[in-house]
Amino acid sequence: MTKIKAVITNAPDGGVSVKTIDAERSNYKVLLSPIYTGVCGTDRGIVSSSLKFAYNPEGYDYLILGHESICEVLDSKVPEFKAGDLVVPVVRRPGDCVNCRIGRQDNCSDGKKHEAGITGMHGFMQQTFADDPEFLVKVEDKSLKEVGVLTEPLKNVLKAFEVFDTVSKRAVFHGKDSTVLGKNVVVIGTGCEAFLYTMMSRELSFNALMVNRHPLSEKIMKIFGDLGLRFVNYAEEPESQFSAGIDLLIDTSGDPTTVFNFLRKVNYNGVVILFGTNGKAPPGAFTGADIDYIVERNITIAGTVDAAKKHYIQATEYLTKWHALYGEKLENVITEKFPPENTAIFTSRQKDEIKSVIEWK
Amino acid sequence: MTKIKAVITNAPDGGVSVKTIDAERSNYKVLLSPIYTGVCGTDRGIVSSSLKFAYNPEGYDYLILGHESICEVLDSKVPEFKAGDLVVPVVRRPGDCVNCRIGRQDNCSDGKKHEAGITGMHGFMQQTFADDPEFLVKVEDKSLKEVGVLTEPLKNVLKAFEVFDTVSKRAVFHGKDSTVLGKNVVVIGTGCEAFLYTMMSRELSFNALMVNRHPLSEKIMKIFGDLGLRFVNYAEEPESQFSAGIDLLIDTSGDPTTVFNFLRKVNYNGVVILFGTNGKAPPGAFTGADIDYIVERNITIAGTVDAAKKHYIQATEYLTKWHALYGEKLENVITEKFPPENTAIFTSRQKDEIKSVIEWK
Amino acid sequence: MTKIKAVITNAPDGGVSVKTIDAERSNYKVLLSPIYTGVCGTDRGIVSSSLKFAYNPEGYDYLILGHESICEVLDSKVPEFKAGDLVVPVVRRPGDCVNCRIGRQDNCSDGKKHEAGITGMHGFMQQTFADDPEFLVKVEDKSLKEVGVLTEPLKNVLKAFEVFDTVSKRAVFHGKDSTVLGKNVVVIGTGCEAFLYTMMSRELSFNALMVNRHPLSEKIMKIFGDLGLRFVNYAEEPESQFSAGIDLLIDTSGDPTTVFNFLRKVNYNGVVILFGTNGKAPPGAFTGADIDYIVERNITIAGTVDAAKKHYIQATEYLTKWHALYGEKLENVITEKFPPENTAIFTSRQKDEIKSVIEWK
Amino acid sequence: MTKIKAVITNAPDGGVSVKTIDAERSNYKVLLSPIYTGVCGTDRGIVSSSLKFAYNPEGYDYLILGHESICEVLDSKVPEFKAGDLVVPVVRRPGDCVNCRIGRQDNCSDGKKHEAGITGMHGFMQQTFADDPEFLVKVEDKSLKEVGVLTEPLKNVLKAFEVFDTVSKRAVFHGKDSTVLGKNVVVIGTGCEAFLYTMMSRELSFNALMVNRHPLSEKIMKIFGDLGLRFVNYAEEPESQFSAGIDLLIDTSGDPTTVFNFLRKVNYNGVVILFGTNGKAPPGAFTGADIDYIVERNITIAGTVDAAKKHYIQATEYLTKWHALYGEKLENVITEKFPPENTAIFTSRQKDEIKSVIEWK
Repeated sequence: MTKIKAVITNAPDGGVSVKTIDAERSNYKVLLSPIYTGVCGTDRGIVSSSLKFAYNPEGYDYLILGHESICEVLDSKVPEFKAGDLVVPVVRRPGDCVNCRIGRQDNCSDGKKHEAGITGMHGFMQQTFADDPEFLVKVEDKSLKEVGVLTEPLKNVLKAFEVFDTVSKRAVFHGKDSTVLGKNVVVIGTGCEAFLYTMMSRELSFNALMVNRHPLSEKIMKIFGDLGLRFVNYAEEPESQFSAGIDLLIDTSGDPTTVFNFLRKVNYNGVVILFGTNGKAPPGAFTGADIDYIVERNITIAGTVDAAKKHYIQATEYLTKWHALYGEKLENVITEKFPPENTAIFTSRQKDEIKSVIEWK
Repeated sequence: MTKIKAVITNAPDGGVSVKTIDAERSNYKVLLSPIYTGVCGTDRGIVSSSLKFAYNPEGYDYLILGHESICEVLDSKVPEFKAGDLVVPVVRRPGDCVNCRIGRQDNCSDGKKHEAGITGMHGFMQQTFADDPEFLVKVEDKSLKEVGVLTEPLKNVLKAFEVFDTVSKRAVFHGKDSTVLGKNVVVIGTGCEAFLYTMMSRELSFNALMVNRHPLSEKIMKIFGDLGLRFVNYAEEPESQFSAGIDLLIDTSGDPTTVFNFLRKVNYNGVVILFGTNGKAPPGAFTGADIDYIVERNITIAGTVDAAKKHYIQATEYLTKWHALYGEKLENVITEKFPPENTAIFTSRQKDEIKSVIEWK
Repeated sequence: MTKIKAVITNAPDGGVSVKTIDAERSNYKVLLSPIYTGVCGTDRGIVSSSLKFAYNPEGYDYLILGHESICEVLDSKVPEFKAGDLVVPVVRRPGDCVNCRIGRQDNCSDGKKHEAGITGMHGFMQQTFADDPEFLVKVEDKSLKEVGVLTEPLKNVLKAFEVFDTVSKRAVFHGKDSTVLGKNVVVIGTGCEAFLYTMMSRELSFNALMVNRHPLSEKIMKIFGDLGLRFVNYAEEPESQFSAGIDLLIDTSGDPTTVFNFLRKVNYNGVVILFGTNGKAPPGAFTGADIDYIVERNITIAGTVDAAKKHYIQATEYLTKWHALYGEKLENVITEKFPPENTAIFTSRQKDEIKSVIEWK
Repeated sequence: MTKIKAVITNAPDGGVSVKTIDAERSNYKVLLSPIYTGVCGTDRGIVSSSLKFAYNPEGYDYLILGHESICEVLDSKVPEFKAGDLVVPVVRRPGDCVNCRIGRQDNCSDGKKHEAGITGMHGFMQQTFADDPEFLVKVEDKSLKEVGVLTEPLKNVLKAFEVFDTVSKRAVFHGKDSTVLGKNVVVIGTGCEAFLYTMMSRELSFNALMVNRHPLSEKIMKIFGDLGLRFVNYAEEPESQFSAGIDLLIDTSGDPTTVFNFLRKVNYNGVVILFGTNGKAPPGAFTGADIDYIVERNITIAGTVDAAKKHYIQATEYLTKWHALYGEKLENVITEKFPPENTAIFTSRQKDEIKSVIEWK
């Protein structure tokens, strides 16, 4: 038995602490240690007890947190990995439904999958842990030691665009020149996921606009500006910003009223991606005229959660590109690093935060 | 000039009357005369002035009504059609957008298409009219002289299933045996479109259930029962009816509160088809928890309107099959026939109505 | 133990005989007895030992033949089936590859599936047999007691059209009016599968033409003619028959020279379905100019074998329709019925044969 | 009138010369000047008169060559472009078929499209030329002044992968973990297109292998090696190289015998992309057993030519990434630069050539 430090909660009751745990680390295929683990709204929701679907692994009275990570291989007993490799472990682990059977547990049909650090499986906020090679994604570009922690949130974006790609085939979505040049994406929200959706939308040649109902700090505005991203505070900006309509609306807020507000600007054959969740958001009013609007315009609304291993790989490819092009400007998105002991980052969002991470030595 | 009788309105101001019109009928490719024209909610909406998007053809101060029809060819100057042929004319006529350019004006991207009897083009409720062969669908089965009037409403159903087919590919929708056996479709509503959605769902091997919030008359129950369709009055029936969840929810009511009520029962990877419209329906409340539900379950919601010529053809094929199997039991769905002069049928739904039609001699 | 009569071979060595076998029939979920079993080229290939991939079930020195059948349920211990039900058993049984796992053993990725009457699993040419409800397709229309035996060959056609549907999405295949009206299908061959491909092509609104390099007997011509199908003896007919080119070419012959001959008439974005197999067919010559033709025209060639349970269900739906419309004219396709003892039908194609079947009392 | 230098041929008779032409350059939307124009097999085929489909523009007795290029904007009268912008002009220009109508002239259904420098439209090997903004793709990354000339050949690869993506959906192509890790791509050929197919295959996580039937020079081996690409001389290498089978076979040779040789190693559900053309290649023999192999394994073979504007944009994105990662190692793929006057490069492939380009001052 080895003593390891871990960040734990008691799901779904919540709370957070750093604890030293006795762990069995002699019987493994691949032994890992995290370099950075990211903190996101889901972690905070579990800690605050607002995410009632979280639960401890069977036989445990605690849950080790952490699903966003970039890890180093300490030792490997399989040929695919060797000590020193950078890897990102996959969060969702399959059950036996028809989607889980083919590696698409992100589309689990019966809810019997597990999620590291969330539902019934310990997460990655522990000094060392063992994992199965099947669930590890190698990061070939060693310079991603830091921004590689964005692989996990970015993989969600890539799955969402896979969904968009599928559902938008119901009509001709592209323009008369076969491209999406001139098509408008509006991303609701300005957090890390909103940022990544905006980066990806631009990468795919859309006009991309991030919106929020308040101004951003100078620091955040500079980070977005350095990367060439556009932001609008819609509480102040004139409607003319949206006069050409929205072709693809992406929500990371989970707030019905805001979603409905922008949905009413979506163009014919437009697509709405619902990604953000906020279980406590107040109800929004949706009228018969709104349904009429969706029907008459052949609009599609798609909820999307998590992603498959293939999207993790795609995410590392885009991070490799963006890091090569933007370097430090991309690294600035990791706005602060904390030691594991600083559990205060789980109880409130940090000032000027895009992505806060825990640094594991 | 020929004098013809026509049923007209003044869009979007509404009203309805039968009028004798001077019409030019010497210069045509195909000359048609309707056998039956169906009356639906859209016609009544135009007459009552609640559908504000309706408008008269350019240069006219009236709009001839009628988009559901089965017609007879009186004369043809093209080889594809000959006198005596049964045809159904296509309702939507293309503009120049990227979808209209390939015959998919049902997915018109800029709203510049026209719709016979609705937006800027005279409809089929007139004794004779000329049309272009490109927009005529031949009905090979001459025994469909009556139920062929269901081609137009059924084509909407076939487009909706095309949409379902496309969007459901985002995950594995079918069961472990490759089929949809045991998958549940709930159709909200009991009008003609709801009836056709239910017929088609069963045809595709789904468990199909029609629901409404009130009981149906004995007459209607008998018609549905003769065809083997299932109905539930959800205002009275226990929740257990829906305990297995809904895999495909189809709404023909346009009522947000009802849609949201059933949406909360939709299974993982489920699909919601929004087809019904009711611009005057009161708002429904949609909460953050509802968005959460859609996101976590990868649910897709698709508005769908109209259909393409290919769906008219498919519709005639299914009607041919159903008519061969059910005969008079299918014909009973046409619950009453009226002369053109009886304009009262435009101002209120008839008692025990599934489909009311106007009979043209 | 029960004594049952069965038609057996010794795969892959071949031969055929009728034998009485001691069989365990007390422990079953569903007990079945065939009404008719069809005989096809695969059966004859096994018997003549030309299909080297056939093999006996593990532990047996013989293989019971038969994969085309319509059966009656003798007894059932599961609620989905009851005595007297008509069923068609699925031929392929899954292994554990990524396609088998989701009920698509027709697309088996590793060859480890089994096929009743062909590879490692006893077939349906035995007086009684037990099966799992998961692999039984119910035939609701009791009037299909006879033509229901076409379900199995027709299911192959439906899978092939699924393949066509998928691959043809690489470009706009349909015409400017959204339909395939005026698009030409040429089906090479005049056997039962060719017949079913032609029926289905017409059902989907194609111009369908069956071709062979010899004339057909009057009897066969009458059967096809009664069903309104078109045939051309291309050894005699002028090229003008194909002057508009071929949009969808379907081969049931397996003969390279014939396939290449027609392939050179395929239109831009055309699709070629390879379905027929003839391992002994002599080589055809394919030149650089032929590859050039395929490249420059964006042509797709797709091999397709077997089908999934969903296609069996679709097949019963089309047979129900066609039987309702054509009645005896469809039944005539079953050109002769034999007792099990007449094993001569396995060694040569019968005169004027479309489909020969064995009748089981 | 302006005097400009141009490289011309007389299609389809062939020949090549540099000529000074009087050209009208006062009436334009965007005025361009090429920086580099690439020379490929198509140019050489036109010059040698082996490509009989090439023809001069209407009213001209010559054809200006050149379809691969990277150009500079000299002047622009539209806001989308300004002097100094880098652009790649699109080669194919639309006719009025159903694919051309939506910007997919690469899938032209009737052959009535035009191709710059090939069929009925002057190409880009001229000192200045005017073009329409609709057909210009902006290259944002100014460091691509040189390798941007690979945009045109790379766009073909991206269309081919779009085709692969569509046709491979007919079954589950990916592995049990949702990825293509461990899936093998074999690219036949070692020219520029083969090189780009191999780069892209690796980018998409395939095992990628380039093959040819002769050894490569040390210089070429070093260029491929520096980029981490794998090559096998299959005339010498043991069969074990292909023992795991081929999941995606890509041909750039156009040689039937070679294609058939590798086709017989393709796995279940495998895909074959035919891209290379060699109208003079001798016939290969294809037997009944080969057709059987394609059928039983559900193999798909897809010819693919050209690409849409969207693929040009994707190509610039991948070149941006690869150039950022590999720098000079990528630039080395442009193996030699020639002045326009050196027309010898049109009559034979250069020693150690991957891509030869003409440098325009």
